[in-house]
Amino acid sequence: MPILQIHLIEGRTVEQKRALVEKVTQAVCETVNVTPEHVKIILMDMARHDYATAGILKSDEQK
Amino acid sequence: MPILQIHLIEGRTVEQKRALVEKVTQAVCETVNVTPEHVKIILMDMARHDYATAGILKSDEQK
Amino acid sequence: MPILQIHLIEGRTVEQKRALVEKVTQAVCETVNVTPEHVKIILMDMARHDYATAGILKSDEQK
Amino acid sequence: MPILQIHLIEGRTVEQKRALVEKVTQAVCETVNVTPEHVKIILMDMARHDYATAGILKSDEQK
Amino acid sequence: MPILQIHLIEGRTVEQKRALVEKVTQAVCETVNVTPEHVKIILMDMARHDYATAGILKSDEQK
Amino acid sequence: MPILQIHLIEGRTVEQKRALVEKVTQAVCETVNVTPEHVKIILMDMARHDYATAGILKSDEQK
Repeated sequence: MPILQIHLIEGRTVEQKRALVEKVTQAVCETVNVTPEHVKIILMDMARHDYATAGILKSDEQK
Repeated sequence: MPILQIHLIEGRTVEQKRALVEKVTQAVCETVNVTPEHVKIILMDMARHDYATAGILKSDEQK
Repeated sequence: MPILQIHLIEGRTVEQKRALVEKVTQAVCETVNVTPEHVKIILMDMARHDYATAGILKSDEQK
Repeated sequence: MPILQIHLIEGRTVEQKRALVEKVTQAVCETVNVTPEHVKIILMDMARHDYATAGILKSDEQK
Repeated sequence: MPILQIHLIEGRTVEQKRALVEKVTQAVCETVNVTPEHVKIILMDMARHDYATAGILKSDEQK
Repeated sequence: MPILQIHLIEGRTVEQKRALVEKVTQAVCETVNVTPEHVKIILMDMARHDYATAGILKSDEQK
């Protein structure tokens, strides 16, 4: 019954998401002794103006 | 003060959401002894490529 | 695939939680057209010093 | 390591979000003794038909 | 209607939490134009073995 | 900046959690092109009377 929520900065492709959920599900199954069909994953994209570290929006950060 | 977050696969109409929050609020009030104005509900739509079971994106599932 | 998280002030009995998840699951199924086995509910108890409205902890509120 | 999720009704400008994360980060640092770079904030906009109080969608409320 | 969830490493006192919710509520009201009674905050303590950065539990970090 | 929340039925050991965060962090880094120090994971234990499928608490399920 593990349920995962993963917040990501927007911009990942469906191919990357497909690989992400496959590999993360494997990692969960190997380590906490569950079968894959019990692993649920919710992906949540964040716009760059919706995530901040140190009080600064990601969209305002200098490279 | 119950606060609910409900993740749904995208595609529900506003009519369905209206009925959902009405009925769920009733269910909460009847069972945990609160008045309706204390029940807050956040609905969160998930795209089919943002939800996975068993390591497979919903958008990749075979019918 | 609806997944619900419900935050409650601590103190509900298991009997209340049993009734809550039964009734809320029914409400979800009736309104957004899913079967019960697809409805997952996570209950999360909040201590009275871990919830605030208007900047005041619940444990500090005057009756 | 504080991690904050903030759900807001949609419609805030980037300027408001910029001010919000700056001021909230300051408030966290002053009160729980962390440095700003450890404070992460996720902002989540809610459409008015995705938030309900008392079983009524925000988009259905009468002014 | 802002709803905030704040995850903190365990160990903060009620005094710190009281100050945290007061100051954060002020910061929200000043920046996104809401009145205090609409700001709800949920605090969630994390044990040091329940938080990880870079794949390492906080409880395993070297000082 | 991926931030993960993982809800697990209670009972996992610290050893299992240590392995879980290590392997999941690797899986995230390999698939969405981030470095490990940007991956934050919050683990959240659920009591068996705080998780339900099909309207039935986990603690009430028949083996």
